[in-house]
Amino acid sequence: MKIKIINPNTTWSMTRKIGQCARQVAAPGTEIVAVSPDMGPASIESHYDEALSVPGILQEIRLGEAAAVDAYVIACFGDPGLYAAREAARGPVIGIAEAAMHAASMIGASFSVVTTLERTCGIAWHLAERYGMQRFCRKVRACKLNVLELEQPGSAAYRIILEECRQALQQDQIDSIVLGCAGMTDLCRAIEEELGIAVIDGVAVAVKLAESLVHLGLKTGKRGDLAYPLHKPYSGLLQSFAQT
Amino acid sequence: MKIKIINPNTTWSMTRKIGQCARQVAAPGTEIVAVSPDMGPASIESHYDEALSVPGILQEIRLGEAAAVDAYVIACFGDPGLYAAREAARGPVIGIAEAAMHAASMIGASFSVVTTLERTCGIAWHLAERYGMQRFCRKVRACKLNVLELEQPGSAAYRIILEECRQALQQDQIDSIVLGCAGMTDLCRAIEEELGIAVIDGVAVAVKLAESLVHLGLKTGKRGDLAYPLHKPYSGLLQSFAQT
Amino acid sequence: MKIKIINPNTTWSMTRKIGQCARQVAAPGTEIVAVSPDMGPASIESHYDEALSVPGILQEIRLGEAAAVDAYVIACFGDPGLYAAREAARGPVIGIAEAAMHAASMIGASFSVVTTLERTCGIAWHLAERYGMQRFCRKVRACKLNVLELEQPGSAAYRIILEECRQALQQDQIDSIVLGCAGMTDLCRAIEEELGIAVIDGVAVAVKLAESLVHLGLKTGKRGDLAYPLHKPYSGLLQSFAQT
Amino acid sequence: MKIKIINPNTTWSMTRKIGQCARQVAAPGTEIVAVSPDMGPASIESHYDEALSVPGILQEIRLGEAAAVDAYVIACFGDPGLYAAREAARGPVIGIAEAAMHAASMIGASFSVVTTLERTCGIAWHLAERYGMQRFCRKVRACKLNVLELEQPGSAAYRIILEECRQALQQDQIDSIVLGCAGMTDLCRAIEEELGIAVIDGVAVAVKLAESLVHLGLKTGKRGDLAYPLHKPYSGLLQSFAQT
Amino acid sequence: MKIKIINPNTTWSMTRKIGQCARQVAAPGTEIVAVSPDMGPASIESHYDEALSVPGILQEIRLGEAAAVDAYVIACFGDPGLYAAREAARGPVIGIAEAAMHAASMIGASFSVVTTLERTCGIAWHLAERYGMQRFCRKVRACKLNVLELEQPGSAAYRIILEECRQALQQDQIDSIVLGCAGMTDLCRAIEEELGIAVIDGVAVAVKLAESLVHLGLKTGKRGDLAYPLHKPYSGLLQSFAQT
Amino acid sequence: MKIKIINPNTTWSMTRKIGQCARQVAAPGTEIVAVSPDMGPASIESHYDEALSVPGILQEIRLGEAAAVDAYVIACFGDPGLYAAREAARGPVIGIAEAAMHAASMIGASFSVVTTLERTCGIAWHLAERYGMQRFCRKVRACKLNVLELEQPGSAAYRIILEECRQALQQDQIDSIVLGCAGMTDLCRAIEEELGIAVIDGVAVAVKLAESLVHLGLKTGKRGDLAYPLHKPYSGLLQSFAQT
Repeated sequence: MKIKIINPNTTWSMTRKIGQCARQVAAPGTEIVAVSPDMGPASIESHYDEALSVPGILQEIRLGEAAAVDAYVIACFGDPGLYAAREAARGPVIGIAEAAMHAASMIGASFSVVTTLERTCGIAWHLAERYGMQRFCRKVRACKLNVLELEQPGSAAYRIILEECRQALQQDQIDSIVLGCAGMTDLCRAIEEELGIAVIDGVAVAVKLAESLVHLGLKTGKRGDLAYPLHKPYSGLLQSFAQT
Repeated sequence: MKIKIINPNTTWSMTRKIGQCARQVAAPGTEIVAVSPDMGPASIESHYDEALSVPGILQEIRLGEAAAVDAYVIACFGDPGLYAAREAARGPVIGIAEAAMHAASMIGASFSVVTTLERTCGIAWHLAERYGMQRFCRKVRACKLNVLELEQPGSAAYRIILEECRQALQQDQIDSIVLGCAGMTDLCRAIEEELGIAVIDGVAVAVKLAESLVHLGLKTGKRGDLAYPLHKPYSGLLQSFAQT
Repeated sequence: MKIKIINPNTTWSMTRKIGQCARQVAAPGTEIVAVSPDMGPASIESHYDEALSVPGILQEIRLGEAAAVDAYVIACFGDPGLYAAREAARGPVIGIAEAAMHAASMIGASFSVVTTLERTCGIAWHLAERYGMQRFCRKVRACKLNVLELEQPGSAAYRIILEECRQALQQDQIDSIVLGCAGMTDLCRAIEEELGIAVIDGVAVAVKLAESLVHLGLKTGKRGDLAYPLHKPYSGLLQSFAQT
Repeated sequence: MKIKIINPNTTWSMTRKIGQCARQVAAPGTEIVAVSPDMGPASIESHYDEALSVPGILQEIRLGEAAAVDAYVIACFGDPGLYAAREAARGPVIGIAEAAMHAASMIGASFSVVTTLERTCGIAWHLAERYGMQRFCRKVRACKLNVLELEQPGSAAYRIILEECRQALQQDQIDSIVLGCAGMTDLCRAIEEELGIAVIDGVAVAVKLAESLVHLGLKTGKRGDLAYPLHKPYSGLLQSFAQT
Repeated sequence: MKIKIINPNTTWSMTRKIGQCARQVAAPGTEIVAVSPDMGPASIESHYDEALSVPGILQEIRLGEAAAVDAYVIACFGDPGLYAAREAARGPVIGIAEAAMHAASMIGASFSVVTTLERTCGIAWHLAERYGMQRFCRKVRACKLNVLELEQPGSAAYRIILEECRQALQQDQIDSIVLGCAGMTDLCRAIEEELGIAVIDGVAVAVKLAESLVHLGLKTGKRGDLAYPLHKPYSGLLQSFAQT
Repeated sequence: MKIKIINPNTTWSMTRKIGQCARQVAAPGTEIVAVSPDMGPASIESHYDEALSVPGILQEIRLGEAAAVDAYVIACFGDPGLYAAREAARGPVIGIAEAAMHAASMIGASFSVVTTLERTCGIAWHLAERYGMQRFCRKVRACKLNVLELEQPGSAAYRIILEECRQALQQDQIDSIVLGCAGMTDLCRAIEEELGIAVIDGVAVAVKLAESLVHLGLKTGKRGDLAYPLHKPYSGLLQSFAQT
């Protein structure tokens, strides 16, 4: 089984880290392909960045379809382009926020999200609503960290995130913490061990969900809202995106 | 006051029609600029098309900001890129689905939407939820029409839409019908006269809302979720989108 | 176009202030008529006051209909009698809470309301629910001020309201503040300038919405819930209210 | 214990009928006083009629308070003026829609409402939402009957209502039918016997709920939203309503 | 009329206390039978305890049916087995959380629950949702008390509960406090007198609701979700539970 | 990894079938143990049956904990005793309705459930609400089949279920069908092939989800609502259930 993990930003250090974490949890027969698109933002911290990460994601989906990829993971906590990607793909497409929230809802009564910048908290809440997970989400907490600080060796990022997770643990009456950025994937176990509460990394969960759906033969529905996009002309910079 | 209306698809016949309808309702001092982006899909009928219309929209916002545009209207019923556009703009940005649903909620107890393809109904419902208008929306009805059929002289489009509106009027216990596509903007009055029920074209309402907000000095909030996007590198095809 | 603004309380100093603010934002061709009914409470600070302001409102609607008024604004933040007034009127009727909340939902992710007495906060929340605006409303804050203190020259009202708005700005993570009383209409710009956040006065927004709907030919639906009241006998003090 | 039942319309034949039904279910020690106000509409079939029934209701509350009434029932299915009446009263005030829906939620999984005119269905749904009973309400069905047809001897009202109840029974998968008009109070048992499903008359339930709350010493909360109205001048036709 | 109150735990001191409180509010003609099942947990403080209290409840329902009981009260704030009991019973079955929340919704705008252990707060919130009462429930507060501490003479329980109620009164902007444990039934009046706010004991309310429904002839619907359980084999320890 | 699948009814033919289907999807290293409790109902078709299946489930959880089971699946579509089981277990516990609905929400916009008896539809809707999946569930359809008819060789069950699934496919605008009974597990593929739409069997999905959570080290949260039950006396028939 081939699972393609698309880190929608163009920061390959993060992509490699995501790929490693994914491989650690993948089943023996699963091939993990982790990529960044060759276009788009270096990090995703706004609706604007999200929107402009989507063409790159969709390009990777197209390449993936040609390469017989079985399922996709969108490895950014805003799950950008999830529904567009599902339209373009035959197999399942899983967002990491989606995956993490679903898992959290099965192992406890409620969770909090710990994410990067304040301005993205509203995006996380919107996803929670969209997936039906709002009722399980107690709080979305921002660390006031830029995404790329997570990539700087020696930054204070780990310490700051750990501290916010500790606040969540002490104040939010929760059963788990959902990490709100794909760039935190490698911190998951350390925080879990430090705090003694389940810490959920959406990348890992998404890989297992994708494997599960593929194993069960469950593909994206093509009869309704998620049918393949219609053929039509595209122009300018984006003309290569026309479905043919 | 300068209001820029962005038809996010690249079909200029529709853009011209939208511009005309907008000018018919604009106040004397309002300058209407109606454009299509120079990139993207010829019509928008899926999440995929929507997602790929957004870069063009954002490019037009950037051009508009440089040209001191006071407010923007996104003239596609899926309101693609609305929040990203708001981040990039100083003044208000109004979606036509948003505008039409808000107006409908003020003149009656409920409305139905009449739109093009079945597969976009879910998008309309999601917008209704997002704007808080779900409680006023009785039904979203599809005409099984492609968007571009609305542009073909002599097509059966008008007759089919009229018929669906009639069904809505007879079955849905509604006070108004919201037209679910910017390409229907010129049909609004004819249907209204034929059926004797308020028929709401989002383009017209959005122009008036945009004028109103500008007149009142209300701009997009820049303190939180809709602050300007952060400066960061963008690469590849989309590198010109980096905020500077 | 003639727009009648009904201040449902009988305090004409407030009515005049409301009329002035309305005229400042009205379009050139709009005639603003601001009135108080000749019956009812001197101020509205409870369900009881609201209920007893409604006959006066409906009397003014009747007079307005006879005088070919095009649209009405109910200038009390509880939007008393809104649906009854819509039944009695041909054209649109807009409540100032309704108007302010709708506008706030278009320029930011969320807003807080700053109102007078604690006991009216529940009324504001109920309106937010009714208009679908609950999801945008972060908090309803009371200033512990009586409505009529807003009319006393030299009162501490402005300072107290400003302080509560400042709290909202600092604590609520909002993009705008909605003023929760028609009597605050003249304070809007001063607070906005002091705090640097959008402050929304429902009177001004309602005037623009009313103008917009009239301009677009959108009238109150008369086919269903908001049809004209049926003819029937009324007795006693209220016998003149019978529809004939 | 003294319970005052206020039929908010001025049709005394209905008031007497309501009083009789109330007395049939009241406990031995309960004195039932059934009244119509001396002002207001002959029947209530719109927001307009509702709004104009409220002054009469509030006058009856005031008289009741002076006469040491222990609890009130508002005997119109729109529960007009419920919150205003609660402010003015020391003891409990129960609406018949409220009472009926609560009872229905305890004896089955869901109910339908059978009411008079189509245009009042929205009012019933709003009440269901307000009381938290929306989740139990499957359908609100109109009989296309004017309220006063219920008072005409020999009218087809009973047959028409029975037929609509039968439709509800057969189509709605419900456990009970809530009668949506106080004027149907005397039909309850006959329909129940004819159809073999619980048929709930709000008048009867409201009497028992009022008795229960009084018996338990539970009074309307006076600390917050439902505190007594403030003292202030009232003018014109309504000047006698000032709280003193 | 015979009403059976089932205290689902096996602590008879609590059962007796519950019975006494019930008798104090029952109508003259009402016979109160208060029992504990002969199987199950000594106290109920988790989903586990709740689940294992249900067989005992259902046994008592069966005995009650044989003894022509008219209605049942389940006297544990988690309302365990409510729907199963309704299936097995002919007459109404009322839970004390259900009863208390419904009453609270009629005498004020909102209430808080004061209960025993933190871990049961989620259960209370779930019930509030299920009964439609979530919109009235401001907060569920835990006292960190085990249920059985309420039964120990001289324990600090009363003082601790009183203190939590005082916090609720001061912080929650509520009109009443709902006691979240049947074992608090005897504390109700004392707290009410101490604090001057309505304090609602579900046992008392449930008795009055049960009496009311029986008096009105309203029984559990047997046409749908709450029909009698089907006949089928049961085995092992529970074989006597087979419906025959 | 050891996963225990508890068929909460005592019909071992169904248990064996469930075990076989589970083994077909399990990963190589997963040991599947499929059991029925030695107490309880032969089939589960009501709240009553559900409630009385729970002691058996909890007994199997206890046995499982002693046998170092890593995760549990409750293989009845009502997910009986899910939260009680989670309290008693260290590892994850997954209900098959929960599993199926979650999977359905990831591969399409909406699903319908096809279940056995009409009377259980309300249970399915309640679960959908509880898991946040209500927004994805278009319809719950009953086949009017008793559960045990699924076990009778040569019964019409398959044909009837297939027909109902076909209706769902044609009328509900869905992307997948969720089978609403563990006893249908073996019909999944045949229906899927017949109809060409994804048909989801909760048993299979639950196995993969359980494997995934175990693989990721995610256990049931023990800090709050799902902490181990407290030690306390249990009496009578159920005395062996006391936690020690």
